[in-house]
Amino acid sequence: MAVCEFSLIDKYFSWPLQNPVNQLAVGDDCALLKLPAGQQLAVTTDTMVSGVHFFPDVEPEALGHKLLAVNLSDLASMGAEPFAVTLALTLPKVDEQWLARFASGFRQLAQQFNVDLIGGDTTSGPLTLTVQAMGMLPTDSALLRSTAEPGDLIYVTGCLGDAGLGLKIKQGFTCSSPDLPMECFNKPWPRVQDGLFLRDKVHACIDISDGLASDLGHILKQSQVGACINWQQLPLSQQVQDYIGQTGDWSLPLTAGDDYQLCFTVSPEYKTLLNNHYHCIGVIDEQPGLRIARNGTIEQFKGKGFEHFS
Amino acid sequence: MAVCEFSLIDKYFSWPLQNPVNQLAVGDDCALLKLPAGQQLAVTTDTMVSGVHFFPDVEPEALGHKLLAVNLSDLASMGAEPFAVTLALTLPKVDEQWLARFASGFRQLAQQFNVDLIGGDTTSGPLTLTVQAMGMLPTDSALLRSTAEPGDLIYVTGCLGDAGLGLKIKQGFTCSSPDLPMECFNKPWPRVQDGLFLRDKVHACIDISDGLASDLGHILKQSQVGACINWQQLPLSQQVQDYIGQTGDWSLPLTAGDDYQLCFTVSPEYKTLLNNHYHCIGVIDEQPGLRIARNGTIEQFKGKGFEHFS
Repeated sequence: MAVCEFSLIDKYFSWPLQNPVNQLAVGDDCALLKLPAGQQLAVTTDTMVSGVHFFPDVEPEALGHKLLAVNLSDLASMGAEPFAVTLALTLPKVDEQWLARFASGFRQLAQQFNVDLIGGDTTSGPLTLTVQAMGMLPTDSALLRSTAEPGDLIYVTGCLGDAGLGLKIKQGFTCSSPDLPMECFNKPWPRVQDGLFLRDKVHACIDISDGLASDLGHILKQSQVGACINWQQLPLSQQVQDYIGQTGDWSLPLTAGDDYQLCFTVSPEYKTLLNNHYHCIGVIDEQPGLRIARNGTIEQFKGKGFEHFS
Repeated sequence: MAVCEFSLIDKYFSWPLQNPVNQLAVGDDCALLKLPAGQQLAVTTDTMVSGVHFFPDVEPEALGHKLLAVNLSDLASMGAEPFAVTLALTLPKVDEQWLARFASGFRQLAQQFNVDLIGGDTTSGPLTLTVQAMGMLPTDSALLRSTAEPGDLIYVTGCLGDAGLGLKIKQGFTCSSPDLPMECFNKPWPRVQDGLFLRDKVHACIDISDGLASDLGHILKQSQVGACINWQQLPLSQQVQDYIGQTGDWSLPLTAGDDYQLCFTVSPEYKTLLNNHYHCIGVIDEQPGLRIARNGTIEQFKGKGFEHFS
């Protein structure tokens, strides 16, 4: 059946605007938006490619969710409040059932966060999905990578390595209770509320998409500082603890990506407040590089996170 | 050679910001932008896929130019002034020479229009390129598709069919002076200045990306009006006139895409002012559909513009 681009958008990707920032959406050459006074615009883009970022047999609802979640996570890491996204869909063919399920996963997460789909493009070609997400925050309040200070405590918002374990389960590792790691891998939750809560408190912040070591590494490099992580303080699910016990692969929570927790650095004065919600895993210092304290020794960390083209 | 995502961005896609709207660009989780008071944000996205939107042997400079141009054209058609773009690049391999040439074509056009590249994503996969462009315009001044009125004159900003002829030349048609059509096909020029000039004058506007009949059709449908085009008034280059003379293919300027002229409708009071710059090609009326007056007869136009998945 011949289905034109316009009817695909109308059928699967047009739903009523719910955020007052968005004044005109799908249907003209551009979307039109109006930010409240005193707000900055935060913009981020992420692409997911079939066979690279997801398995071709992924559940379409989970793919729609995750594609949006990884973009909202970037907004969360700056302390921005999301309000709009565009979606560029490149599809090898029109599979209406697949599209309906994909759109459903995308929409459910979008509506949870008061985010409207304001535009996009639908093209034919190898399955590739790009989202650009837009958020707002009061001028000069963004959480940057470049503002960590020696003496800061390093926190993460939640458990590390679950999505990495989910990937290993998908690749054949046997786990007695795989639900949590698979959920983390397939449907990560963007820490938007945490980003907003942290906005007036923390020095530097990043979301952990490529693994703690790699992403914290960006903070260290851009802030011209170093860090020491206490491995015993890393928050780990029972499943990840069991995996490490079985395999000895203790670096998983440092190198596995896709968890989308936030990693942030903060003055010790906030310790009491933050320890109720988050996990202190180390300290920022002046010595360049990342060190791991584990089993009574401190060693420079050599592992790497995920990189394309490497 | 292993080249990581971050060094690709640093090497080819980082140049100094030149537009004061853009406060923070490539290097953090999001870009940060600050619009002047009283301005709306206009946002558009277009994807180009190798083998669908461009030939795999396209000159990389031309591809970089065209990818940006088609997005700026969408801003032009709303009367918005562009200031920032993001770029999502999916590349099958790292070809540094190709990237340098692609970035050069992209950058040259961007800098002509005071547009900064503020962010993006680089992934591995089949060659697919997505740009999101952002522009601004005074609140409630956007040129829409839905506001044409019966009695309006219909104008285009320049010649039609040249890019379509360029495509035919690329596919083997012999043209004695192919430079203009090939230039129109490979490196279209976005009518940004025209959009700004027209902003306080016209009723409805669209850019001609899919062919005059298809794009004017969006105005007709969304404005709930009809139109009659006088074929003899279509502005045609000598090359397109010769092509039609040789082939009899008189519908080319109505159906061929990629010209990126603007098509707009305007009250007849502006006729004297506009006739110095633009080409009046017909009138808006109340009878639904698009009619073509040609050789003394008026007929309903049946041809279609370019549609994906058709």
